[in-house]
Amino acid sequence: MLKSVGLAGRVELELRSGAQARGMVRGGGAPLGDARVRLLDAAGNVVATARTGLDGAYAFSDQGTGAYTSSRPSHRPGRPRGACRAGARSTARAGARRGALGRLSYCHLGRLCVFFRGRVFPPLRIPGSQMIVPMGSRMSEVELPPLFCPLESAIHPRVRKVEKRAEEWIRNSGMCATEEEKAWVIATHSADFYARFAPGADDDRLLATALWVYWGFGFDDARCDSGPLSTRPAQFNELACRVQRACESETATGEDRYIGALQDILRRFRSLATPTQVTRFTHAHRAWLSGVAWQVGNQALGRMPGLDDFLTMRALAAGGYPTMAMLEIANGAEVPDRDLYRPAVRALTEMAVMVASLDNDQHSLRKELTRDQTDQNIYAVLMRERDLSLQQAVEAATGLRDRILLRFLHLHDRVRPTAGQELATYLQGLRYGIRGNNEWGQRVPRYLSLGHWPDAMEDAALTWAEEPSDTRPGPLEGAPGIAWWWDEDLA
Amino acid sequence: MLKSVGLAGRVELELRSGAQARGMVRGGGAPLGDARVRLLDAAGNVVATARTGLDGAYAFSDQGTGAYTSSRPSHRPGRPRGACRAGARSTARAGARRGALGRLSYCHLGRLCVFFRGRVFPPLRIPGSQMIVPMGSRMSEVELPPLFCPLESAIHPRVRKVEKRAEEWIRNSGMCATEEEKAWVIATHSADFYARFAPGADDDRLLATALWVYWGFGFDDARCDSGPLSTRPAQFNELACRVQRACESETATGEDRYIGALQDILRRFRSLATPTQVTRFTHAHRAWLSGVAWQVGNQALGRMPGLDDFLTMRALAAGGYPTMAMLEIANGAEVPDRDLYRPAVRALTEMAVMVASLDNDQHSLRKELTRDQTDQNIYAVLMRERDLSLQQAVEAATGLRDRILLRFLHLHDRVRPTAGQELATYLQGLRYGIRGNNEWGQRVPRYLSLGHWPDAMEDAALTWAEEPSDTRPGPLEGAPGIAWWWDEDLA
Repeated sequence: MLKSVGLAGRVELELRSGAQARGMVRGGGAPLGDARVRLLDAAGNVVATARTGLDGAYAFSDQGTGAYTSSRPSHRPGRPRGACRAGARSTARAGARRGALGRLSYCHLGRLCVFFRGRVFPPLRIPGSQMIVPMGSRMSEVELPPLFCPLESAIHPRVRKVEKRAEEWIRNSGMCATEEEKAWVIATHSADFYARFAPGADDDRLLATALWVYWGFGFDDARCDSGPLSTRPAQFNELACRVQRACESETATGEDRYIGALQDILRRFRSLATPTQVTRFTHAHRAWLSGVAWQVGNQALGRMPGLDDFLTMRALAAGGYPTMAMLEIANGAEVPDRDLYRPAVRALTEMAVMVASLDNDQHSLRKELTRDQTDQNIYAVLMRERDLSLQQAVEAATGLRDRILLRFLHLHDRVRPTAGQELATYLQGLRYGIRGNNEWGQRVPRYLSLGHWPDAMEDAALTWAEEPSDTRPGPLEGAPGIAWWWDEDLA
Repeated sequence: MLKSVGLAGRVELELRSGAQARGMVRGGGAPLGDARVRLLDAAGNVVATARTGLDGAYAFSDQGTGAYTSSRPSHRPGRPRGACRAGARSTARAGARRGALGRLSYCHLGRLCVFFRGRVFPPLRIPGSQMIVPMGSRMSEVELPPLFCPLESAIHPRVRKVEKRAEEWIRNSGMCATEEEKAWVIATHSADFYARFAPGADDDRLLATALWVYWGFGFDDARCDSGPLSTRPAQFNELACRVQRACESETATGEDRYIGALQDILRRFRSLATPTQVTRFTHAHRAWLSGVAWQVGNQALGRMPGLDDFLTMRALAAGGYPTMAMLEIANGAEVPDRDLYRPAVRALTEMAVMVASLDNDQHSLRKELTRDQTDQNIYAVLMRERDLSLQQAVEAATGLRDRILLRFLHLHDRVRPTAGQELATYLQGLRYGIRGNNEWGQRVPRYLSLGHWPDAMEDAALTWAEEPSDTRPGPLEGAPGIAWWWDEDLA
């Protein structure tokens, strides 16, 4: 089963004050003349335009410590618009089809965003710049391979009943500002999602944990990925700490509409779970927010992380840690500290979260590309770091994801036989989670529904890969931060 | 015993694009004419100057979506420099002595920083602005009362020996870029500090935990409070996640010179402590970094938090949570989960951290004011929120700190009799910590030494308050986030 997706490109780069931005538009390997390039201010106003010369080149420069004025001088293509002060010089090169529209957006002092729309062949490269985000570039098609996922599939028998209760809660929670937002939160089908993680939970526990998933998606969409704070790290850091306080303090107050809803969820946790389970969840919750804060910072800077950083960031920002921490709450089983924090079990948790996070990058690729929503995914990272096309990056990402899953399976089989009952329940939850995340992610309107309002959940049959695409053992190349997962002595 | 400190004032406010900044300089209640006001760009260049008119007024406005140009027009005092576009209008009022120098610094699009130097009577107020940081204003003297601290005092018998080993480590760690930085890290006397928290630790455990304190101060000074990242939240968020990864992954790499040193400390922890103790430390470490990220965001925005937010932020950012989490590592005693995460014990930990954090605000006030280093302290918060003078704010801060300490003592006495051995050791560590932090903080060159190079540690006799300054029970007014500490049912 192959899927096709479209892609719009964007490049952002950080310039020191006084820098000059020069670009060359290329298509199919050759310079393209007479391509339009626009310079925008932070509000999206066109403040300057240029056309590429016969050599494909264009240039803009800022004007000292201020920024672009709102004047719109006409100037000759390929020539700097003003005097260039001493400072960084960056040259942008991009392959683009003839007539492609480029957008250069000046955001704030020392920062320049370059947007390209049109059919630009990958990858965009801006050599010589300190901050580069050569995002995905435009291409008409990419083939997404089926996933290798030899793990048990299960779903809670009363999932529909719990889902109804969850939808009722969402409608009354006050966290959604509009009917549309509410519809999209409901369309995450988070009850279906978590019913696959914890198929044996009692109804109230499944409801409470599913509510957090609904809440997390709503918060993520409104505040992290695409809301007004998504590129404002200073404001996001404050909100993150207030949200975290709402988890940890019953008496905390907060103006944000998501905070009251979260406090209601935490009240449910405290009434159902042990203080240890709730505390573990709050620790994981903070880890999630720290990853989102990193991502928001990257978005603000227009910066694409390298693979090693990205893997750390993505596993945090995808919300997998609080999701897995809720396994104990849903199942009512408290894993002893000495088990949960053993290096081998820590590694299993981290690997399960990482696989699920990378799988979500695949699930959401189509939507993100269509909406030009975010560039921070494994494909963009690999395209840049290894100079790959999107199709090549999809294959590379699948390979490294499979290698992590194989290591998970191997280590799991070593740990499980001697695990006590609570740990065994937890490990089974990790397995259900990896599988369930995929069953849900390949059907959910959140990722598949591209219109203004969500479609109904698909009930499509799923196709799985029979074999892993890459079986090489050992740590992944270029990812020292997770190399310890392959430590032979892990116990 | 009373101390005198000097204070330089600063005001920052957020302006929407197109906004106009108008100010009135007042001294002793009357408008001051002919006072100089300067407008600076982010690099500190003077881009415009003004003098107040007879009515004390001055004004600047930006010029549309761009910013201030580098031209230096002379214009009549008290009159706007350019046309004022539709947008926010903010009026600044400040009391200042005749001839005081005000600095208005334009930082980036939509942001304006106003600095005042001179004898400005508190508080600075900028009504009608969305973002206001009426910092401390200038005054010649403030009286800092002695602290109420009826807790046991102790110090590790081999502290000097351990301190020598720590200094040797610092010299070889590579984390300090200059001899001066090294001297200031050593002058934190962190071994003396932690020897008071854990007087019964074995030497290697005291060394390892003290090393983290040295590291934390060095990192805080170089990266958080006053380094180049101190007002760059996007960059800081990334560094914070990398630093945290260095705690959690043995195989992580990182370019920052503080990261390698941290990994060495964590290796020591892993060899000395249980996986549970190390994990608890890493959770606390992330909490610390999240608080610093909040503070960095505030600094970037020129924003002063309200009391409720500040208390949460300060307790996190001061580093008290990882410091207290190390008690278990130093003492070799692992508190069972069911004890450590009981609401009553969580509250005791939080209260101990809060008291120590507020005490550090007092210890560092003199240095911070002299260096104009940061405005994010309890005094500035109370001055703004309650419209107090600095002296009144010092008294209010002491009162609320004493009320928290009294609640700590009360709850401690209820929990201690039934505590198991590990919990009892931990609770005693919290008590030693509150006391030891003060014994150290009132003598350490970090806070007392105002020159370019640190002086030797003072061996001054300390004076303590006999009685708390405020004995009112119940939650603090205006601080709902910590109100639950006073819950009568806390168990």
